[in-house]
Amino acid sequence: MFIHIASGIGSASTKLAAFDAALNHAGIANYNLVRLSSVIPPNSEIVLHDTKPIPPHHLPGDWGDRLYVVMAEKRVDTPNAEAWAGIGWVQDKETGKGLFVEHEGESEKSVRRDIQQSLEALMATRNVDFGPIQMDVVGKICVHTPVCALVIAVYQASNWHNQPQLCK
Amino acid sequence: MFIHIASGIGSASTKLAAFDAALNHAGIANYNLVRLSSVIPPNSEIVLHDTKPIPPHHLPGDWGDRLYVVMAEKRVDTPNAEAWAGIGWVQDKETGKGLFVEHEGESEKSVRRDIQQSLEALMATRNVDFGPIQMDVVGKICVHTPVCALVIAVYQASNWHNQPQLCK
Amino acid sequence: MFIHIASGIGSASTKLAAFDAALNHAGIANYNLVRLSSVIPPNSEIVLHDTKPIPPHHLPGDWGDRLYVVMAEKRVDTPNAEAWAGIGWVQDKETGKGLFVEHEGESEKSVRRDIQQSLEALMATRNVDFGPIQMDVVGKICVHTPVCALVIAVYQASNWHNQPQLCK
Repeated sequence: MFIHIASGIGSASTKLAAFDAALNHAGIANYNLVRLSSVIPPNSEIVLHDTKPIPPHHLPGDWGDRLYVVMAEKRVDTPNAEAWAGIGWVQDKETGKGLFVEHEGESEKSVRRDIQQSLEALMATRNVDFGPIQMDVVGKICVHTPVCALVIAVYQASNWHNQPQLCK
Repeated sequence: MFIHIASGIGSASTKLAAFDAALNHAGIANYNLVRLSSVIPPNSEIVLHDTKPIPPHHLPGDWGDRLYVVMAEKRVDTPNAEAWAGIGWVQDKETGKGLFVEHEGESEKSVRRDIQQSLEALMATRNVDFGPIQMDVVGKICVHTPVCALVIAVYQASNWHNQPQLCK
Repeated sequence: MFIHIASGIGSASTKLAAFDAALNHAGIANYNLVRLSSVIPPNSEIVLHDTKPIPPHHLPGDWGDRLYVVMAEKRVDTPNAEAWAGIGWVQDKETGKGLFVEHEGESEKSVRRDIQQSLEALMATRNVDFGPIQMDVVGKICVHTPVCALVIAVYQASNWHNQPQLCK
């Protein structure tokens, strides 16, 4: 299956609206998100969109469907504080199996270090080496209004008849 | 699809039991809740039950099924503190598409203002006008025992064979 | 349906990695967890594994599938602090219907007392007597590295085509 990863930053009058603006930035504001914790199925192909939204033709499902995602997100409303969020992953080249970790914090360094250490520990726990650690990390400083930084990995959409639609 | 909105307040020996009492008040204590974040699908009809429980004949599924919901809930156990929760929404008259926001706080004013500002921001982000803002807000003061205030929007039930049952 | 309950304790370089180690201890680290809140369906049979992992042949689904669970989990990274988590339940002998509660805390006593009081309140709210209260509670003290204590009840796995697989 394809798993699309995108990031978003948002700023708005409330923390919730900043979160929504960040989701909109990532291209997925119009879904009902269900959060997963957080493993990459075999034969998955990760598609990374950096700071651009996921193009609509890659996204499964429609307005109001459930969208199953792994998400790191940090909301901050203290002026001069920073919101940082990141997803890291490792993936076995042969099977496509892998592992995600999500971390949030108030500095880029702490989020990157958390991701690095968590993935090393997850591989040690399973006694596997899934190769080099990759990560997508974003952040934003709070000036006046609340901000949100998020990184999201999209797995699948399900409509309200429980029919699945995979990413393309 | 029909989306039923109900509110509940509860008071009990623990915060979790207060939450359960509030769910019972709203008529949905006997489901396995899965939380959504939080969009109204096209062609939806919102049915508001105010402070009454959702009548059982409107509720899909049975004891122990998964129930997909948008929920605002606040639990408080400090005497004299207040628990407030609210859901707000806007809905396009033509398509039935809409947006929910959920807010919690310790005063009615802050929750109502958050809902108002968030929905204005969500419409601005999407460059749409979905009409007037509606909201359902409830609260309760903590006297001796923990209290919970919640508002919940029920989308669908799924049994453990993944068969969907929509609201009536 | 069968519902398997297992506990785990973990210690690792980050709180997230400690959580993963505890999941691994319980035998379910390689799923995408979706959290439920928290009712036992009719005709359920609870299978308790104490401190041992759930044997793989009892677990439904495969690496990366969604696993629907009730979970109590506590992560602590302050030296000398304790992480405690527990699930309690009652179950009607005739119908198999029941109720779960999940509690977390920093002492065993508080978690056990919370579970006891919550289940008494949940039965009182429904005006039922589902018999004696059972519980599975675990804890761990933080020495140097972050720790996690968790208890988990596994309901079902769904693959990405939304096909369900029940526990055996």
